[in-house]
Amino acid sequence: MRNTCRTLLIGLLFGSLMGCESTQSESKNIQISQQLQQQALRSNLAYDLVESLTVEVGPRLAGSEKDLIAVKWAEDKLNSLGFDRVYKEPVEVPVWDRGSAKATVISPYPQGLVITALGGSVATPADGITAPIVRFETLSDLKAAPEGSLNGKIAFIDHKTERHTTGKGYGKTVGGRSRGAVAAATKGALAIVIRSIGTDHDRMAHTGMMRYQDDVQRIPAAALSSPDADQLNLMLKRDQNVVLNLKMTPQSHGYTTSYNVIAEIIGSSKPDEIVLIGAHLDSWDEGTGALDDGAGVGIVTAAGKLIQDLPQKPARTIRVVLYAAEELGLIGGKAYAKAHKDELNKHYIAAESDFGAGLIYRIDYRVAEQAFEDVLTLSAPMISNGVAMGSNTASGGPDVSMLPKQGVPVASLRQDGRDYFDYHHTPNDTLDKVNSESLKQNVAAYAQFAYLMAQSEVELRPIEVAK
Amino acid sequence: MRNTCRTLLIGLLFGSLMGCESTQSESKNIQISQQLQQQALRSNLAYDLVESLTVEVGPRLAGSEKDLIAVKWAEDKLNSLGFDRVYKEPVEVPVWDRGSAKATVISPYPQGLVITALGGSVATPADGITAPIVRFETLSDLKAAPEGSLNGKIAFIDHKTERHTTGKGYGKTVGGRSRGAVAAATKGALAIVIRSIGTDHDRMAHTGMMRYQDDVQRIPAAALSSPDADQLNLMLKRDQNVVLNLKMTPQSHGYTTSYNVIAEIIGSSKPDEIVLIGAHLDSWDEGTGALDDGAGVGIVTAAGKLIQDLPQKPARTIRVVLYAAEELGLIGGKAYAKAHKDELNKHYIAAESDFGAGLIYRIDYRVAEQAFEDVLTLSAPMISNGVAMGSNTASGGPDVSMLPKQGVPVASLRQDGRDYFDYHHTPNDTLDKVNSESLKQNVAAYAQFAYLMAQSEVELRPIEVAK
Repeated sequence: MRNTCRTLLIGLLFGSLMGCESTQSESKNIQISQQLQQQALRSNLAYDLVESLTVEVGPRLAGSEKDLIAVKWAEDKLNSLGFDRVYKEPVEVPVWDRGSAKATVISPYPQGLVITALGGSVATPADGITAPIVRFETLSDLKAAPEGSLNGKIAFIDHKTERHTTGKGYGKTVGGRSRGAVAAATKGALAIVIRSIGTDHDRMAHTGMMRYQDDVQRIPAAALSSPDADQLNLMLKRDQNVVLNLKMTPQSHGYTTSYNVIAEIIGSSKPDEIVLIGAHLDSWDEGTGALDDGAGVGIVTAAGKLIQDLPQKPARTIRVVLYAAEELGLIGGKAYAKAHKDELNKHYIAAESDFGAGLIYRIDYRVAEQAFEDVLTLSAPMISNGVAMGSNTASGGPDVSMLPKQGVPVASLRQDGRDYFDYHHTPNDTLDKVNSESLKQNVAAYAQFAYLMAQSEVELRPIEVAK
Repeated sequence: MRNTCRTLLIGLLFGSLMGCESTQSESKNIQISQQLQQQALRSNLAYDLVESLTVEVGPRLAGSEKDLIAVKWAEDKLNSLGFDRVYKEPVEVPVWDRGSAKATVISPYPQGLVITALGGSVATPADGITAPIVRFETLSDLKAAPEGSLNGKIAFIDHKTERHTTGKGYGKTVGGRSRGAVAAATKGALAIVIRSIGTDHDRMAHTGMMRYQDDVQRIPAAALSSPDADQLNLMLKRDQNVVLNLKMTPQSHGYTTSYNVIAEIIGSSKPDEIVLIGAHLDSWDEGTGALDDGAGVGIVTAAGKLIQDLPQKPARTIRVVLYAAEELGLIGGKAYAKAHKDELNKHYIAAESDFGAGLIYRIDYRVAEQAFEDVLTLSAPMISNGVAMGSNTASGGPDVSMLPKQGVPVASLRQDGRDYFDYHHTPNDTLDKVNSESLKQNVAAYAQFAYLMAQSEVELRPIEVAK
């Protein structure tokens, strides 16, 4: 597509073709993408899928029995929707069971606190760990503590997550969750509790994955709800010696097999080239995974279905990938990249929906610099759906974030996430939090994106390899 | 006070005395009440009290160990604030322990649900009760079910509580909580679950007292969180045969002694006449009772303290009553009415703060019809604090609601309760939900009310006895 035609093409979206040089096929693409947008805004399919997944399957922690029920659910749904091809690919996933988690202030003000185990945490001894807490503002502060200064103590990282539309507050605090246990154990701590990585004031703790390191003692790790973190602060203000008893019974049970579930609309003229739109099928175990990532599953599946039902298939194959075990460390995403290694050079572009059900306000890309303007021009039909044209710095979403390093262009369809971290990884991630209208707008955006990319004649490679 | 002077008196609040007939003492009363208002709006005492109670004591279920710690806290606080007189009066209260509560959908879509035991509920057998659920829209619908139609079933009342500033939605649904178990058992049910009596969409169940009846089988009773009630509905939409397993371990342990804790500012000229401002000290056990009723405790205590510190005490005695065991059935209020039976004719007026920390927008009274206009005139200084003059139909608040029947005038200082039932009786009733600024406005209103009533020369009796 010629750059000179960009403005006119945008004009075309809202009016008639005014002698533009664009080819007939380009205007046809625009017309079909607009038709997909309108169909998406009228369809409740994505919401119906989220409802079905959250009600009929519910929580589906990777590696659990419910995870396999979710895989079966996905295969059945994708088959019943009539995709050209539906298949699954095995993924090895760890098996971890949450058990129970209880925290009690022993002194100076005895009372229970609301906590939850971080994903992957080891258990405490049966009678718990009883020790004074030492508060740190941030993970960096904990890392700066003197060696041995936490001997016999429980570390407490109290970092508050800021609310932002982009969700950028999460990035600033999540290190305390994933790397806090190693940092605390290095200083001698018996256990670690963190203020939940969340923006709400509900008395629910936010779980999420944490990591150990082979050469460092594995200590139990839990998150406190925000009001409970406040409570500890107010106790510490009165008395620096706050003693906590922590009892947790999570267990790890080796590995099992889960699956990436995949559906395809086979391309009409370039069937070996792939436009990938993904979401993850697994969820945390305490909510029903409506926002994370039932919404994404609904969005990309419904978007794919609209294209599947077109009278004429687009040039490239569109691959809807429902990833396994994203929550446990992008395991499905990594497995996909490995299994499809030899085919990655045929991946035209990839994008994942994994940020709830908020409206999409912008699309970012990561494509060759010289292709960027053309790809924006190509995406212009999305503007009338409220999607602004963004930057060339996308990561593409968690499960496709490893693809740019292998040369695959990606896009990030940015959603309004200002309330996403109110519910993220809590029991509160339930269907009532999903706005069916914004879900439709998401489907429209993904359908337009996937279709336009599958028809695109822009060369997106080579991309600048992310550091 | 003469009615003719009313408008001028209101004018006086905002300007100078313009030759009004009001006596010097009346204008002095207005001046002092305005001074109390301004002091209240500058003081953080009420919030500090709520913080202290919720942090240092925390949850304080009547009859529990923590309840007695709360009584000690209250005595210490009231003494340290320098009230003229501080004492406590014994109240017999039941001892009930929540234990654990677990609900699991066995079929058709196995998954856990979030529930909590209703206060006073009996336990299930150790392996739980497994039975199909039968849904009813309301308690009335349950009552209309044929005899024996719930044999071997679990009743499910699904009544949604409406959000209103006045909180009137609660009155429409709470019957299902208090009387649902008796109604369900009468029809043969093995247990009952209800949609939480609450206005939120959080995955937390709302507890609250329920009652049994001697001649009816005692069956376990629990509340489901709102998202879990939705979940059951969506399952029933797909399959009418939803089987639930309910495991609950609450226990009753007879009775113990708790206390109404009382502080007085002794009246300068009519010390035997009483203006009562109350709140309840006990709370449910899952939150820290910040809104219910830490806020009330803070408000009436801080209001009393402002009057205690006046250079000249008002004519009547002001009695600050922190009631025991309101949550378990107005037990402290009833005990007070009984213990002070002979003195109730000396109670000039009574009011309780027990509706959280929302702004007071209106004051209602229940006084002699012929006194109503005068008492509104008298209360006019409260208008500049945002308190409108209301009706003559007040109940006075839960723990004083039995007093009008014994001839005692009451007032209701109406608070904005539109979010009160989001948190009420849940783990989410914590300090972060208390707005310190609206708390100050409440203190101002109670201080003005108590002072003006303690100085009033209006005869409030005889009141029309409530039916």
